[in-house]
Amino acid sequence: MLSLTAVLVAVVCVLIVWIFKPADRSLQKKEREPEARPWVDEDLKDSTDLHQVQEDVDEWPESEEDVEHILFSHTRYPEKEMAKRSQEFYELLNKRRSVRFISNEQVPMEVINNVIKAAGTAPSGAHTEPWTFVVVKDPDTKHKIREIIEKEEEINYMKRMGQRWVTDLKKLRTNWVKEYLDTAPVLILIFKQVHGFTASGKKKVHYYNEISVSIACGILLAALQNAGLVTVTTTPLNCGPPLRMLLGRPPHEKLLMLLPVGYPSKEATVPDLKRKALDQIMVTV
Amino acid sequence: MLSLTAVLVAVVCVLIVWIFKPADRSLQKKEREPEARPWVDEDLKDSTDLHQVQEDVDEWPESEEDVEHILFSHTRYPEKEMAKRSQEFYELLNKRRSVRFISNEQVPMEVINNVIKAAGTAPSGAHTEPWTFVVVKDPDTKHKIREIIEKEEEINYMKRMGQRWVTDLKKLRTNWVKEYLDTAPVLILIFKQVHGFTASGKKKVHYYNEISVSIACGILLAALQNAGLVTVTTTPLNCGPPLRMLLGRPPHEKLLMLLPVGYPSKEATVPDLKRKALDQIMVTV
Repeated sequence: MLSLTAVLVAVVCVLIVWIFKPADRSLQKKEREPEARPWVDEDLKDSTDLHQVQEDVDEWPESEEDVEHILFSHTRYPEKEMAKRSQEFYELLNKRRSVRFISNEQVPMEVINNVIKAAGTAPSGAHTEPWTFVVVKDPDTKHKIREIIEKEEEINYMKRMGQRWVTDLKKLRTNWVKEYLDTAPVLILIFKQVHGFTASGKKKVHYYNEISVSIACGILLAALQNAGLVTVTTTPLNCGPPLRMLLGRPPHEKLLMLLPVGYPSKEATVPDLKRKALDQIMVTV
Repeated sequence: MLSLTAVLVAVVCVLIVWIFKPADRSLQKKEREPEARPWVDEDLKDSTDLHQVQEDVDEWPESEEDVEHILFSHTRYPEKEMAKRSQEFYELLNKRRSVRFISNEQVPMEVINNVIKAAGTAPSGAHTEPWTFVVVKDPDTKHKIREIIEKEEEINYMKRMGQRWVTDLKKLRTNWVKEYLDTAPVLILIFKQVHGFTASGKKKVHYYNEISVSIACGILLAALQNAGLVTVTTTPLNCGPPLRMLLGRPPHEKLLMLLPVGYPSKEATVPDLKRKALDQIMVTV
């Protein structure tokens, strides 16, 4: 009788702990959340949903429709011209620098349209073209964007970042005051669409959306440099949800990058950085 | 005495389950692993280590060193020329297509060097330049790469992919036979360095390495198009570890993209796809 009771109690205890332990742990996690952020759950769910799929597929079909195949039309240059074109393209892009001091002078919208059209030629997984470029010219909206980003940046620097990261940034004299968000005549906010919708309204997975949109951003940076405009690459991921809501973008669009665009201010400076030589980035087999 | 024993047993059981349950669960996970892949643990550990940091930072300082700041030198074009340059750049890139039929004709290595130098001008988090471009010309190595990728692709199509994905691909007449991996004169495998090393040999976090390297790939695609070469964007992530080992790259380098590069074969076809119009990808505020 004595040992029977003990065994019974033991079994019951084991079961109770087994059942409640994981629930208890997820509860603890929730309690640790620093402040109420209504959008966080929704946004996190969207990206975790897609995580497994993104790691498993590896081919980029150009579309999911049964499109006709046509002969590819190609422009081929003589070898000497290829060498010249590629050298000149490198020299043009090698002059690009991240510029944080941007003049308030207006830029031609025709040029902004063209650089975004160029970015839109990027390849994308299953030809989903999962990007939205939000061009902000309105001074009030720019200022609200600045307020959201500076508030979040300050929290980052003061609370969330490890001491190492803060030290790294100090050395560069960067801080959380982002004047260029007010002065740049144009802010381009690039959103990745983590999924789309079928004709019947069902969710359609966007394979490799982050890589696709980052490639488009690379082309956008090249296009801006080619046009004689400057920018600085910023990725205010933590500000994504409030910025998305400010700009009225839907929940399946996540902010990937923010580029303030304009002419450099007269006194603009840049750190005197060198780039790695070819033999430090290329290996031939 | 009876209840004391029961309570004692209960407490001991609770403790035992509490301590062993998580260990037991990670054990189960290991057992589910389909085949022995010696590199998987190492590779997964590297990326999960960095996950939290990558989501928390949002500024791209250009370097961690206390470098001198110098006056930025800028080339400004008249507005009319900006419009012309940006229009021509768009038209050039709009002719780019993903080409899967690549001729075995050799391409000038000077041009390959230049397009990779152009890619190396991309911005990167904390100016880490976290990219390695492996240029494969050796036919045997190309063939081994093809074998690794086709084997993995076949598994993808047959086993791992959902029925929906296989159907999507069928419509495009794509399958896991990748002839271009043998015929293309050059394969460029782009690796992201998920961390680097300090002078004393400690791990140095590479913030935003995947976005940085994807931006570099966007510039690389533009540079190839500018030079009159073709490619197709592929991301054989599951083949990353065996390809990394084949090419002798260290564990902190992960394959992000593989680009077969060359001239199009004479009979090359492409799906007759359209790109979204500007008003479908751009919003002005």
